[in-house]
Amino acid sequence: MLCDSNIQRMKLLLKDTATSSSSVSVESKTKLLCSIYLQLKSQEKADFLRHLVMNYGVNHSSVQKCARSFLSSQEQGESSRIKAEENLRSSLTPYYIGLFGHIGRLEGGVKFLVDLRKDVLYLLSMLEPNKSIAPNIKALNKTLRDLLSLWFSAGFMRLQRVTWDSSCDMLQKISEYEAVHPVRSWGDLKLRVGPYRRCYVFTHSSMPKEPIVVLHTALTTEISTSIQSIVNHAHLQLEEKLFQPLSKDVVEDPKNIHAAVFYSISSTQKGLQGIELGTQLIKQAVKDVLAEFPRISLFSTLSPVPGFRDWLLLELSKDERGALLSSFFLTDEEYTSLKDHLCKNNAVSVREQILEMLKSNQWLQDANLSELLKVPFMRLCAQYLYREKRRGYALNSVAHFHLRNGACIWRLNWLADKSPRGLTSSCGIMVNYRYFLEATEINSQRYIEKQHVEASEQFLHLLGLSHHKSSL
Amino acid sequence: MLCDSNIQRMKLLLKDTATSSSSVSVESKTKLLCSIYLQLKSQEKADFLRHLVMNYGVNHSSVQKCARSFLSSQEQGESSRIKAEENLRSSLTPYYIGLFGHIGRLEGGVKFLVDLRKDVLYLLSMLEPNKSIAPNIKALNKTLRDLLSLWFSAGFMRLQRVTWDSSCDMLQKISEYEAVHPVRSWGDLKLRVGPYRRCYVFTHSSMPKEPIVVLHTALTTEISTSIQSIVNHAHLQLEEKLFQPLSKDVVEDPKNIHAAVFYSISSTQKGLQGIELGTQLIKQAVKDVLAEFPRISLFSTLSPVPGFRDWLLLELSKDERGALLSSFFLTDEEYTSLKDHLCKNNAVSVREQILEMLKSNQWLQDANLSELLKVPFMRLCAQYLYREKRRGYALNSVAHFHLRNGACIWRLNWLADKSPRGLTSSCGIMVNYRYFLEATEINSQRYIEKQHVEASEQFLHLLGLSHHKSSL
Amino acid sequence: MLCDSNIQRMKLLLKDTATSSSSVSVESKTKLLCSIYLQLKSQEKADFLRHLVMNYGVNHSSVQKCARSFLSSQEQGESSRIKAEENLRSSLTPYYIGLFGHIGRLEGGVKFLVDLRKDVLYLLSMLEPNKSIAPNIKALNKTLRDLLSLWFSAGFMRLQRVTWDSSCDMLQKISEYEAVHPVRSWGDLKLRVGPYRRCYVFTHSSMPKEPIVVLHTALTTEISTSIQSIVNHAHLQLEEKLFQPLSKDVVEDPKNIHAAVFYSISSTQKGLQGIELGTQLIKQAVKDVLAEFPRISLFSTLSPVPGFRDWLLLELSKDERGALLSSFFLTDEEYTSLKDHLCKNNAVSVREQILEMLKSNQWLQDANLSELLKVPFMRLCAQYLYREKRRGYALNSVAHFHLRNGACIWRLNWLADKSPRGLTSSCGIMVNYRYFLEATEINSQRYIEKQHVEASEQFLHLLGLSHHKSSL
Amino acid sequence: MLCDSNIQRMKLLLKDTATSSSSVSVESKTKLLCSIYLQLKSQEKADFLRHLVMNYGVNHSSVQKCARSFLSSQEQGESSRIKAEENLRSSLTPYYIGLFGHIGRLEGGVKFLVDLRKDVLYLLSMLEPNKSIAPNIKALNKTLRDLLSLWFSAGFMRLQRVTWDSSCDMLQKISEYEAVHPVRSWGDLKLRVGPYRRCYVFTHSSMPKEPIVVLHTALTTEISTSIQSIVNHAHLQLEEKLFQPLSKDVVEDPKNIHAAVFYSISSTQKGLQGIELGTQLIKQAVKDVLAEFPRISLFSTLSPVPGFRDWLLLELSKDERGALLSSFFLTDEEYTSLKDHLCKNNAVSVREQILEMLKSNQWLQDANLSELLKVPFMRLCAQYLYREKRRGYALNSVAHFHLRNGACIWRLNWLADKSPRGLTSSCGIMVNYRYFLEATEINSQRYIEKQHVEASEQFLHLLGLSHHKSSL
Repeated sequence: MLCDSNIQRMKLLLKDTATSSSSVSVESKTKLLCSIYLQLKSQEKADFLRHLVMNYGVNHSSVQKCARSFLSSQEQGESSRIKAEENLRSSLTPYYIGLFGHIGRLEGGVKFLVDLRKDVLYLLSMLEPNKSIAPNIKALNKTLRDLLSLWFSAGFMRLQRVTWDSSCDMLQKISEYEAVHPVRSWGDLKLRVGPYRRCYVFTHSSMPKEPIVVLHTALTTEISTSIQSIVNHAHLQLEEKLFQPLSKDVVEDPKNIHAAVFYSISSTQKGLQGIELGTQLIKQAVKDVLAEFPRISLFSTLSPVPGFRDWLLLELSKDERGALLSSFFLTDEEYTSLKDHLCKNNAVSVREQILEMLKSNQWLQDANLSELLKVPFMRLCAQYLYREKRRGYALNSVAHFHLRNGACIWRLNWLADKSPRGLTSSCGIMVNYRYFLEATEINSQRYIEKQHVEASEQFLHLLGLSHHKSSL
Repeated sequence: MLCDSNIQRMKLLLKDTATSSSSVSVESKTKLLCSIYLQLKSQEKADFLRHLVMNYGVNHSSVQKCARSFLSSQEQGESSRIKAEENLRSSLTPYYIGLFGHIGRLEGGVKFLVDLRKDVLYLLSMLEPNKSIAPNIKALNKTLRDLLSLWFSAGFMRLQRVTWDSSCDMLQKISEYEAVHPVRSWGDLKLRVGPYRRCYVFTHSSMPKEPIVVLHTALTTEISTSIQSIVNHAHLQLEEKLFQPLSKDVVEDPKNIHAAVFYSISSTQKGLQGIELGTQLIKQAVKDVLAEFPRISLFSTLSPVPGFRDWLLLELSKDERGALLSSFFLTDEEYTSLKDHLCKNNAVSVREQILEMLKSNQWLQDANLSELLKVPFMRLCAQYLYREKRRGYALNSVAHFHLRNGACIWRLNWLADKSPRGLTSSCGIMVNYRYFLEATEINSQRYIEKQHVEASEQFLHLLGLSHHKSSL
Repeated sequence: MLCDSNIQRMKLLLKDTATSSSSVSVESKTKLLCSIYLQLKSQEKADFLRHLVMNYGVNHSSVQKCARSFLSSQEQGESSRIKAEENLRSSLTPYYIGLFGHIGRLEGGVKFLVDLRKDVLYLLSMLEPNKSIAPNIKALNKTLRDLLSLWFSAGFMRLQRVTWDSSCDMLQKISEYEAVHPVRSWGDLKLRVGPYRRCYVFTHSSMPKEPIVVLHTALTTEISTSIQSIVNHAHLQLEEKLFQPLSKDVVEDPKNIHAAVFYSISSTQKGLQGIELGTQLIKQAVKDVLAEFPRISLFSTLSPVPGFRDWLLLELSKDERGALLSSFFLTDEEYTSLKDHLCKNNAVSVREQILEMLKSNQWLQDANLSELLKVPFMRLCAQYLYREKRRGYALNSVAHFHLRNGACIWRLNWLADKSPRGLTSSCGIMVNYRYFLEATEINSQRYIEKQHVEASEQFLHLLGLSHHKSSL
Repeated sequence: MLCDSNIQRMKLLLKDTATSSSSVSVESKTKLLCSIYLQLKSQEKADFLRHLVMNYGVNHSSVQKCARSFLSSQEQGESSRIKAEENLRSSLTPYYIGLFGHIGRLEGGVKFLVDLRKDVLYLLSMLEPNKSIAPNIKALNKTLRDLLSLWFSAGFMRLQRVTWDSSCDMLQKISEYEAVHPVRSWGDLKLRVGPYRRCYVFTHSSMPKEPIVVLHTALTTEISTSIQSIVNHAHLQLEEKLFQPLSKDVVEDPKNIHAAVFYSISSTQKGLQGIELGTQLIKQAVKDVLAEFPRISLFSTLSPVPGFRDWLLLELSKDERGALLSSFFLTDEEYTSLKDHLCKNNAVSVREQILEMLKSNQWLQDANLSELLKVPFMRLCAQYLYREKRRGYALNSVAHFHLRNGACIWRLNWLADKSPRGLTSSCGIMVNYRYFLEATEINSQRYIEKQHVEASEQFLHLLGLSHHKSSL
């Protein structure tokens, strides 16, 4: 319940702003409302949002009235019908959209709405779904998403390359937002924006100091097979010294540059969830790289397979008797070899041991075991990527993202990310999603329209498949 | 009818883009569609727009179905009702809004839509209103306006001061867009962006080289009484020489600056009609002036009274017998004096003569006549501004604009614009709408909510009114 | 004589600044001194400069003393000798150089010194050479030139391309400084910085808004033969309208660009006379053009031949009896034809008539005459350029400039500049000095070291010469 | 000796460049020469510099000839004399100055010469002074200094404020160049450019990414008494986490800002030794601070006293018998107290113990001892600053710098820098040199001309002095 004096003030301000048309006084009241909101605690924000959807949402009875008018207008000609539609549409517009319009006009208002949606999403995640208010909050979320989607369309985004000459502020944010392969030090960061690297961001005109999406790219001689070849922390030990001495700068030699490998892409604003900007960023990055190196022909990602280990664990857990393990997951030969290796001195079943080692990531310590697991894990990973679906599309979100962009699944790389993070998410496997520029349009269309997953010979081979027509 | 091969291509492209969700291939098709549209002739554009609204507007039968579902959902609980509302809202969304979304994502796409709306407005103005397609085109217009309104809200606009150090491109545009007091030469233009002048523009992040709204401001010792004191072309005759020699620059002396007079404000994009940005520009200009000259306390416009002469002509024409002239428009005394002056050697009636001279602007040539007309014309102009209403608000659009912003009608100025343009629109009268910064909020609110017109003692005096509470 | 109170103050300030080492108080005194100087009239400036050289030049007796010490130090070892040299060098340094150092440290100080040198040059030009003060003023001039030469070396200059997006201030200056082919209107100016044109300037870090050297370049299909093909004013007649409507911008088609023609280069600062920056500007312009159009291979000027007509007039005047005309300047055939044409109805001698028509530029009106003059005038112009020398180098300063830069004389163009200006200076002839990039170094060296003038076959042919080794 | 093939090439290039006038070919040769030099080892550079001064210095016999001519010209009138002086001056100009001119015209050439001078200074420091080449190298050094002094005069320097929005590159350099109070981490660095701090740099137009001089300023409520209040590392322990979470930014409250304390100033380029830019930087920083906070009236440094401990150690060492210690350095009372404290359980003499503890900085550990030392150390430090002279000016270079700028010695602060660095250089004492803006000119002049040291009452009081006229 809203009881605080702040909340009382907000209620009054809401009354004055949400339903009023833009005028001078609305602006200052809207500002005040926003500044109070920013000081609220989590629970108070939730209370305010509830108040908002209950009192400034759609007027249901008005919608009913308009719907009836509309239905009875059908025989009164086009003009009446369109008028009635207009009224109906109007009645379906929640009042709070007026408030959002006022906020959007403020300096910093767009950022406020992005953060507001974050709060809405958080509230939704906390809400018991059968709570009667849930559909109203969902409607609020949808309204905000649609609004932000208009404001964050590509036409308003600006591509920037981030280098060591960019502001410390920007670089600090880049570093903090990096979720895929965490940055370990300023020295590490310097390498990621230095020679043979391209770090691109999208910024938005209403929040120019904030990187909205970040794309890390490595310029290499060939499509990389492991993340350690790109983000190698080994030589950073010297960095106990705060700064490395200003060394002669490495100069890029274009002769060594044949591939652009996208090895990390992160969206930074939770409040923009569901508003796809990564695709555009990759497209513009490709353009920018081509402008500088017109002869580069290899464009690919080096991506994790998040969820693969969890999926594997789940599948193995379900297979309580181990029947599938010996027949479906593994070939006879593989199963026998593993059993020989694992059960020599150990009574516990193969399945249990594998489960255990998957959980602890310890299989990597045993070089022989790791060698035995390579073929089956690679195959299983390929199955996971190629066959596990959600509404017909790839279940794995990274795969889905790149396939929708028109990439193909090009290659799985064994032990490509041996960090704890890499093992825990992907059993150390990484994928190259390759972008054949001339084929992305058609690939994208076939995936979107027909759920066709484009993949290379070598990948299909892992699955025991092959296709004649492949040009890959 | 659409028959051209271009139009056939556009139809196909429309099919692929308007209803498809964003994907790689949609972008290139949308680009192509736009580039073809830009090459169409006026009539072809109209054909395309007709095709668009007839085939990609709202699906009326779908709306009917959803409306019925909605009405029958009323007793199935909140969740169903909201779901049904969502469906209904969705069915009311014209398909072409999907296309506009795709266009907005293109580089230059926002500008395309601004220009598209210009075409729509033109088409509307050409359309016979009883044409069956008119309501559909109106709906298209409304959709575009709402969309552009979201994109051109103040949060996306950037205030820029334009000076002689701004780009020639920007200055040429400023000059060409100046509708109120036309720029006569580059020398004239240089003065308007030079010392004792502030020229502000709003630009938009998606079209940064285009001044969307332009505000010309003069920094003066007191609130100006005539436009000639600001835009004086007299000394520009020397300019037969193409360029004036680089003279020592005039340096502003802050001691001489006590007033900021807004003497011209122009919106440049017809496609943004109805999307109010001038208010924001004035507010930001005030801030900028105050940042530089914190002690300035006089903020005022020097504005024309467009429509005053036409109104006067109309009123006099209606008064066929001249009855009102001698009783209502003029005092007995004024009428007698004028009659004495005009009918000495001339048999034509006072009314006819006045009508004639108003039409030809010749009354100004006769100094005595002009003196006799001063008091009645000032009073009539005051009546026109203060009493002529449209839906309760000031009929005169300039007055309406500034009153809504919270200004008051401060002073009428006789012979303030003696240019042919000034005589033809306003009988040479100009108004100062004054902004008392501490009162704009309350003024704005009282005008918007109660249609209260704030005016100064001296102005009310012209009307034979006065108010005790006035602090002006 | 210095008598004014201002001058008295300057004398005192001079005493405090010229000989003092830099300290806080020197700065403010130097500023004051400069600001007083700027307000002096021409004669007062001259007085001040006289006072400066007479009292703050070199102390001659001190030089004598040091010279004697130096001579007697010769046998006291390297260290003493170098010390004595140091003292001698020191004694030869005029005191006013200390003042110039203080001025150079001020904001705007460098510009002040550039303008001061202009005053010095003016004073020198006014001075009777046998005036006893002349050598002192000359020494002052040399000191200033050496100092400015250090500050205006290429490392401090910044290349900028000027376009219609540059500031109006810059474009106005470009227009006013254009001496070779005067700019007639803003529309004309817009063309000179628009498509198929490149306008480059050098600016200096201490006076960034001032174009120091300006180079106009046309991008054409072939090396231009006339200035009218580049600066065509014909279609500007529409410009009675102040501004041309915003037309669709012409877009450059790289396929049409095979040559870069430098058609005007101007130095703007008289005070930098003798400090060569044009060469560097051309070199950087070539680089910039090549970066954009890597396949351009034709680099050439289209230059006037200033002084050709005067030279011709002088030569003809000296040839009082016309003996040379008929034997040396013209072939028999040419002379006969001219005589036939000119003396049909006219008793005046050929020589006199030619002299007269050269003076009045009227020969161009008579198409037949003009045709008859073409061959001899082209030959004479070639002789003027190729054979007239000053200290062994080309007499014509434009030729000297480009030959020193390593260009060759490529082609003479008949009726290439039919403007009054072009006729008066060059009898309408223009030259292409062509830059063969791979040969400029060697050409430059051969011209500087051996006074070798590189020229094309076609040019030498005009002179009745040819060379076998020419690769042109 | 020069034997390497590189060196042979350089010799040839030298021949072509040093004595040639600027032409196209000189530029490429000069570039080559520079690029070879940069690859030389230390010893080879020395060899090259020797070759340069021996072969491209001043031609001594030519100087002799010119000196004789000059002396014999004395009676031939002003013009001849000035001509002879000109020749003499010319003969005294080393040939290598031509080379430096060519280098200065290259991109990056100025930076090359700055670094060249660093090499020259290093060579000088390595050279046995009685080596016959020493005076020639010194002359080279002087030539370079004079040249760089012209290029690095204040008119060419640009003030920049460095913040967290500046480039990482700039901030890394700032951090690495900070010699006075070393930066410990990026978090520390962020604080030094954040709220309540102003970090200013001078950059030069020819090397815009290089901070030439750096000035750190703290905005405080009063003149700081200890460096720990400004550069407090205590709360940085959290920083074991690489980055601090993005906290709400501290916002400066102008009400808390009454003083600007310059707590570190560093010159970064060894090659610019002797070219004073710090004074200008302080002056411009004061202007910038005043523009933002017009009411700030307290401008002061917080400076170390480098050399104080060494001076104290030296004085105590010289005083072998401790006679001065008990009579001159300490008062009777102080001596007795110290003896009581120190020699209670220790047979070693007071002097020896003090010497020992000074060397080890351990006196700070003993709170009682430290209290006993406060008064005498403060007095001795005041004596060191006020009475120790070099050529009549303050011996301490920091004191000399600020006194010459017009500051006064305002206050000594006890235990103001307890870091090992602070103890080792200054026994933990720091000085406030205060800038009274209205008095700096006169102070500067009195110090420069009369060696007058301006000091406050409280400082003079430490010395047992006082002055009536002091306004401090």
